[in-house]
Amino acid sequence: MHVGHLLTRAALRHPDRPAWIQGDTVIPFREAEARVNRLAHALRGMGGQPGDRVAMLLPNCYQGLETILAPMKAGMAVVPMNVRLHPAEHEYMINDSGATILVYGAEFIEHLAPVRKNLQTVKHFVCVGGDAGDPGYEPALHGQPDTPPDVRIEPDDLAWLFYTSGTTGHPKGAMLTHRNLLTMVEQFLLDINPARPTDVLLHAAAITHGSGLSLFHHVGRGAANAFPDTRAFDPPRIFAAIQRHRVTTLFLVPTMIHMLTTHPDRARYDLSSLHTIFYGGAPMYVEQLLEALGAFGPIFVQLFAQGEAPMTCTTLPKEEHLAGDDPVKLRRLASAGREVTGVRVRVVDGADRDVPAGEMGEIVVRSDLVMKGYWQKPEATAETLRGGWLHTGDIGCVDADGYVYITDRKKDMIISGGSNIYPREIEEVICAHPAVLEVAVIGVPDEKWGETVKALVVPRPGAQVTEADIIEHCQRGLASYKKPHSVELLPALPKNAYGKILKRELRDRYWTGRARKI
Amino acid sequence: MHVGHLLTRAALRHPDRPAWIQGDTVIPFREAEARVNRLAHALRGMGGQPGDRVAMLLPNCYQGLETILAPMKAGMAVVPMNVRLHPAEHEYMINDSGATILVYGAEFIEHLAPVRKNLQTVKHFVCVGGDAGDPGYEPALHGQPDTPPDVRIEPDDLAWLFYTSGTTGHPKGAMLTHRNLLTMVEQFLLDINPARPTDVLLHAAAITHGSGLSLFHHVGRGAANAFPDTRAFDPPRIFAAIQRHRVTTLFLVPTMIHMLTTHPDRARYDLSSLHTIFYGGAPMYVEQLLEALGAFGPIFVQLFAQGEAPMTCTTLPKEEHLAGDDPVKLRRLASAGREVTGVRVRVVDGADRDVPAGEMGEIVVRSDLVMKGYWQKPEATAETLRGGWLHTGDIGCVDADGYVYITDRKKDMIISGGSNIYPREIEEVICAHPAVLEVAVIGVPDEKWGETVKALVVPRPGAQVTEADIIEHCQRGLASYKKPHSVELLPALPKNAYGKILKRELRDRYWTGRARKI
Repeated sequence: MHVGHLLTRAALRHPDRPAWIQGDTVIPFREAEARVNRLAHALRGMGGQPGDRVAMLLPNCYQGLETILAPMKAGMAVVPMNVRLHPAEHEYMINDSGATILVYGAEFIEHLAPVRKNLQTVKHFVCVGGDAGDPGYEPALHGQPDTPPDVRIEPDDLAWLFYTSGTTGHPKGAMLTHRNLLTMVEQFLLDINPARPTDVLLHAAAITHGSGLSLFHHVGRGAANAFPDTRAFDPPRIFAAIQRHRVTTLFLVPTMIHMLTTHPDRARYDLSSLHTIFYGGAPMYVEQLLEALGAFGPIFVQLFAQGEAPMTCTTLPKEEHLAGDDPVKLRRLASAGREVTGVRVRVVDGADRDVPAGEMGEIVVRSDLVMKGYWQKPEATAETLRGGWLHTGDIGCVDADGYVYITDRKKDMIISGGSNIYPREIEEVICAHPAVLEVAVIGVPDEKWGETVKALVVPRPGAQVTEADIIEHCQRGLASYKKPHSVELLPALPKNAYGKILKRELRDRYWTGRARKI
Repeated sequence: MHVGHLLTRAALRHPDRPAWIQGDTVIPFREAEARVNRLAHALRGMGGQPGDRVAMLLPNCYQGLETILAPMKAGMAVVPMNVRLHPAEHEYMINDSGATILVYGAEFIEHLAPVRKNLQTVKHFVCVGGDAGDPGYEPALHGQPDTPPDVRIEPDDLAWLFYTSGTTGHPKGAMLTHRNLLTMVEQFLLDINPARPTDVLLHAAAITHGSGLSLFHHVGRGAANAFPDTRAFDPPRIFAAIQRHRVTTLFLVPTMIHMLTTHPDRARYDLSSLHTIFYGGAPMYVEQLLEALGAFGPIFVQLFAQGEAPMTCTTLPKEEHLAGDDPVKLRRLASAGREVTGVRVRVVDGADRDVPAGEMGEIVVRSDLVMKGYWQKPEATAETLRGGWLHTGDIGCVDADGYVYITDRKKDMIISGGSNIYPREIEEVICAHPAVLEVAVIGVPDEKWGETVKALVVPRPGAQVTEADIIEHCQRGLASYKKPHSVELLPALPKNAYGKILKRELRDRYWTGRARKI
């Protein structure tokens, strides 16, 4: 029972169906299984022992999928690293994880150069698609056995060591086990999307994150994994890939959906093969979701999860993603849906007691999805998993029908004059203004109130809007104490590699030199 | 994360849909949830502590389903007992499990009388549907809270303590945990039958066994659980219940399917609502399966599993249950299908080494389905779970395409003149004789060969067949050393409460007074 067996199983059932599709390259399951087995043997040949970590610094490519799967077949774990980080951050993750092997792409040779000498645990460097003096990827596979290595793998063995974006201090490695990932696969196929062998998943988002985790569900069902002809998130190339490969399925974060929805070239491509876009990673504003439903039809599935409990703690299914006039259904579009089978979600107060339905608190989760803990961080593990429940750091509520509303990250909450203000509520209102493309609401320091509400707004191209317009618009839909004290118009908002808006960075401009009190 | 939460979840989503249907009684999910919660509180009020066992001696009835679910919500475990056993066997199970509470049906008052004084761990007796001086079931529920008890339940906590029919000595209690059962539910919904809220499962087989385990999948999806108006397996009453309640789904053992298929009244009922019959517990002979497919259509799903790894280790899905001329597909009808998602199945020799594809060995299984162990039997646990794999005691092989063929129980194998003979192969041939209704092949003692092959045959009603006919029929399809040395015609074969043929009982007639050598 281990995650790599999903590929073996698919190769037995669908040997000739495409597993990886990239440009003109199509690799069927029989060959993908053989290649992954060869890589697994190669990793063992490099001295990789059960429990060892293999770090991965690769752009979206099929070798990346193989580098995710092979360690799992060899009893080792992959450390998937966000390619957009700074070399020093990669250095930290590699050293913290103690990875003995690093598989990297040739495009990162220069990026790694300044830190390479500091990677003292790495005994073997494997280079995909180039020659930096390190052994190449294809030569490493050459001559290795085609069948899975004979390794005993336990359900609680580490499979995926995922570094979360730390908001304070260094990132922490969330330890996901084979059991965590298999639970994720089963619950995903059950409640989110029953992938079929005829499906084609396009990895438009980073395979080091949710899109890479989607690999397992799709491999498990013999579906193809395709790549766009772009390494940035470039909408026309995404559209072109959907059209060319008859893509059925996408995992996106909300800002990506918004980019596709609002792109002027969308209608020039045949996107009719798409039947499912599942999205998560951040809440999606209702206005943007309605716009996306108008553009793509009722093919959206929302997920709420975390790196610590991957992909699917709650879900809002397709049949509840229907634009319409029903106020109950419209309200639920702002929710993250309900518990997935096998997952428990509660909302608790600061003493971990349940709060009544509809009241705000911290979202806590229990499931075999939940990580084993943080890598070599027993105190952070004990704190985050206290009482057997994952404390998500997300603030929200559950209504009487079981719908979970994620309001904000705990750390994004604004406390002004003693009142808790949830930025998301204000952002939803501002988003509904026709001239607004994107918005972020943060708390900024104020002598009198502690914090006050500030809205950072990106206007739609060509739209005319002033700061006063936004404040006036808010006055119509929000309690007075929630409306922004100030508005700033910006050409763009800072985002991380996954497209999440970096509120911390926005806040830092105003808080530098001050100790934040909340 | 516990199994009882599946009911809570269904009550939230489908409060008004029928949960239990029995005669004229229809109990919707909202009420079923409240009743189970009340019973859970009542069990705790009787002093039931987390980890305690609640024994159940109930016929198929909705109170039985409640008695299965309530201990799980209270952090306790149910001990579901086969109602057809001897009072001394019930005494053994109750005492061995140390159950502190016994929920029993009024029809068992006299049955229990001779052993009741020996049940020293039982502090509380609860009687369903009668008055033996014990507290009644409905009064026990009265006044208890409608909401789930606040109990911390761990994934590895015992939920279902299932006594397997011991072939030697006392039965052993297979400890199934909440994680085992949740895994079973997820894998079942994924690979066997995606139950829907509009489904109606008829509990025609015993709820203390596979049909009771099917409860969880169906409750988890808001489907109804109905009961026939019969406590024996009476085909016309099963047909009548299917027609009356528009039953969609049945779990049956092969002999039950055969009884329904061959019953002359079948065509007099409207069975058109049926869309799924899943079956397991014993291999089904291909001839009988083809007959059943002819009678009911392509609605069959085969399961292979054990009490120690419940419901679904391998499955042969509906789309492979098609009668036809394709010899590959016909051959596969004799298989138990392929691995279910998340389960590994191997075939090993006596030293636990893999045997080549197509060769016989013992089937071993690994999955989160596999029991925690045998209750208070550390040695039997270590032996059965050695190396992390469940040793099923079933002999079979896996072909190159991954299809698992279960030939026989290890203990049913015949060794004659030094050759291994698998009774199932001979039974398949004899079954194909038009005059044969049922058959069992066993080994009987022989001075020269050690054992020889004996066929015990039940002719079809009205059919004329002789012992010589059977032997001649076998000569045409079997190697000479495999054909029966003797044939005996019988009016019926002994079966256990689940409809399995009791080969041990058949063999005992011939082996009494001799030590069996294999």
